[in-house]
Amino acid sequence: MNFTDLIIKKRDKNKLKKEEIEFFIKGSSEGTIPDYQIAAMLMAIYLNGLDDEETALLTAAMTSSGEILDLSAIPGIKVDKHSTGGVADTTTLILAPLTASLGLPVVKMCGRGLGHTGGTLDKLESIPGVQVELTPTRAVEQVKSCGAVIMGQTSDLAPADKVLYALRDVTGTVESIPLIAASIMSKKLAAGADAIVLDVKWGSGAFMKTPEEAERLTKTMIAAGKKAGRKTAAFITDMNQPLGNNIGNSLEVIEAAGILKWHIDNDLKTVALALGSKMLVLGGIAENTAKGLDMLNENIENGKGLKKFEEIIKAQGGNPAALYDYNLLGKASFSLEVKAAAGGFVYEINTYEIGKASAALGAGRLSKDDKIDLNAGIIMKKRLGDSVKPGETIAEVFAKSKEKCIEGANIIQGAVCIKKKIPEKKPLIFKELD
Amino acid sequence: MNFTDLIIKKRDKNKLKKEEIEFFIKGSSEGTIPDYQIAAMLMAIYLNGLDDEETALLTAAMTSSGEILDLSAIPGIKVDKHSTGGVADTTTLILAPLTASLGLPVVKMCGRGLGHTGGTLDKLESIPGVQVELTPTRAVEQVKSCGAVIMGQTSDLAPADKVLYALRDVTGTVESIPLIAASIMSKKLAAGADAIVLDVKWGSGAFMKTPEEAERLTKTMIAAGKKAGRKTAAFITDMNQPLGNNIGNSLEVIEAAGILKWHIDNDLKTVALALGSKMLVLGGIAENTAKGLDMLNENIENGKGLKKFEEIIKAQGGNPAALYDYNLLGKASFSLEVKAAAGGFVYEINTYEIGKASAALGAGRLSKDDKIDLNAGIIMKKRLGDSVKPGETIAEVFAKSKEKCIEGANIIQGAVCIKKKIPEKKPLIFKELD
Repeated sequence: MNFTDLIIKKRDKNKLKKEEIEFFIKGSSEGTIPDYQIAAMLMAIYLNGLDDEETALLTAAMTSSGEILDLSAIPGIKVDKHSTGGVADTTTLILAPLTASLGLPVVKMCGRGLGHTGGTLDKLESIPGVQVELTPTRAVEQVKSCGAVIMGQTSDLAPADKVLYALRDVTGTVESIPLIAASIMSKKLAAGADAIVLDVKWGSGAFMKTPEEAERLTKTMIAAGKKAGRKTAAFITDMNQPLGNNIGNSLEVIEAAGILKWHIDNDLKTVALALGSKMLVLGGIAENTAKGLDMLNENIENGKGLKKFEEIIKAQGGNPAALYDYNLLGKASFSLEVKAAAGGFVYEINTYEIGKASAALGAGRLSKDDKIDLNAGIIMKKRLGDSVKPGETIAEVFAKSKEKCIEGANIIQGAVCIKKKIPEKKPLIFKELD
Repeated sequence: MNFTDLIIKKRDKNKLKKEEIEFFIKGSSEGTIPDYQIAAMLMAIYLNGLDDEETALLTAAMTSSGEILDLSAIPGIKVDKHSTGGVADTTTLILAPLTASLGLPVVKMCGRGLGHTGGTLDKLESIPGVQVELTPTRAVEQVKSCGAVIMGQTSDLAPADKVLYALRDVTGTVESIPLIAASIMSKKLAAGADAIVLDVKWGSGAFMKTPEEAERLTKTMIAAGKKAGRKTAAFITDMNQPLGNNIGNSLEVIEAAGILKWHIDNDLKTVALALGSKMLVLGGIAENTAKGLDMLNENIENGKGLKKFEEIIKAQGGNPAALYDYNLLGKASFSLEVKAAAGGFVYEINTYEIGKASAALGAGRLSKDDKIDLNAGIIMKKRLGDSVKPGETIAEVFAKSKEKCIEGANIIQGAVCIKKKIPEKKPLIFKELD
């Protein structure tokens, strides 16, 4: 097979066959197809698309490019969850312990923060001692003993995705629905779960800027998941403002702990519980999502979720006392309140910019090798539609230096738009699909 | 400037600015932009296009990527000619000596054959002793002394084109009108002529498959030439059959010599003289093309064109006696006649396949480093619309071995379609533009 011919085929809007897609992925991950040919193919795919069948084939080929985790030693239906990424999106730290406390075996592979989005691994590492780089064997053992593990992706999962992603990043081909779908789903499928719950974000802090775009991505991912024989369900949720109020690693652990302690009831909790209840349904533990919700709320109220979080932290070498004494998480040396210049209502929040502010404060990475400050971040004091008086605090920022605080505060000032009118309310959960 | 942003700009169908195009070309030729980013940009350009202004800017940037030949030491208006390539297209060997014999200073830079097309340098090298790799200084001297030079492109001309072409070739981005136009015109502009006559081929043996496509390319090239301040004119000519009857290097020299000797009057001569007369007009030597044609015919009749060809060959170290004793050109060891299986009319000739047959016989290169057989080739005995009896010879093939002859003959059999009806006649010169 000549790869130039395959590029030409896609360039001319023709459909690629199974063996052609397999040749593409095998050649990309084995290094036999040069980068420049992969780049040209990616741009042709970006501009001419892939249909659902091609996307499912691409996903399958990428899944098979490396190891597929064998979770068969763990009894029960293994349910995974994936969010497409956003700001103050700490659902994993809430739903993993909660669902595990109800008997769902949880093997949650997570990523690190990059750009404006945070990463669960970084958040978890703000708890002193926690190890996230675990071997598959160790992970399976932990699930068998304590019911859940939250860990980094083992490097062998869908290695083709690494090659493609690195090239997409520098060739302007990131925002392609079939490529995003295949990238996400190949890793999820290789992670070995029997069922997958997706949380697809739309809005100013998400990769998908409209709910329609998010829906197209969601349907593509569900189709790829189902073609691979996995139960796949999804929620399309709002990312037009930070989901929780705390942004930054230890700050988000504190908010998750607060929710598990029944102290906080907010959008973050609502989304976490919606996803969690669906996981319980797919896992055969709850009959329906309404019952699932009740069970989750019960295990917040009775403290079993928090207890499970303690167990997970302990199993991964961390100090669970940090969930009670937040001083153990460390503290930023400087903080600054961001005040509203004018009064009115919070009309718009450029959530992407809020994420960038968090990164500027030290909580995130602008490039992969950046060091992060686990205690830096933002606490948002206002949400969309809230009334604001002139001079009232809209957010508080935390960082290692005064200069960083000022830099972050300035970005937030520009990102929060206050008007004299109330914004139209957007549903937190736009749609549920399966 | 971040090159990923420029890729995204073109990906999203936006217009690139002068400094952005210059950044692209500078980075490509200096190696500071990696191949995979260039490849993605090329595919974005292929699919989303460049307008005439962007194409002219790209051409100018590519022209400036290397040396621009200084022909100012040669008195008079220097006129260059370029053909987009075809089969049995030997016009240069006819019009260069002819126009030079009328006082037009001719610096003709040519290429080598590749794929189904032949190259003037290879043809000229079939004359024993001829040197084609000359320095610019030596070329200028030769034009001053004998009026014309036919030579290889000096390596410093538009080096950015080399980088882009090599990538286009392996990324399915060759057949892009703006990229083809910029590639051709940048080399022509760097070759330093004051005026340029283009011969844009359309048909089964050309890169452009329809006259409309050829016209779009032609207009784009003329616009780029004019933006660079050079007089530019063009002909769109037919390549639905080999232009001359001889295909292959020494065979084409023989046909060119035959035309200069007034022995042959065919389509090849018609096109060569049309181009030549336009060159005389742009060069200020003929008032109009009708007068130019008369002058060219006169210098065929009086032998001055042939004499000039002798002088050029001599000046470049070759033996001009070969123009009279064709045995000096060498001879293929084997030949074979290709016979018509059925009677009727030559209805269609897949000229691309005829070019491939010539390459298979040894006359051309399938890849750049292939050795060629200067005496291999084809003599076509029939043209479109000719009547054919069953068993009548439609072509004769020449090669180093019987096997090669059979291989070439088989390709020709498949490429010539004989039907019981006469094909519609296509004009040899579809259009003249300037």
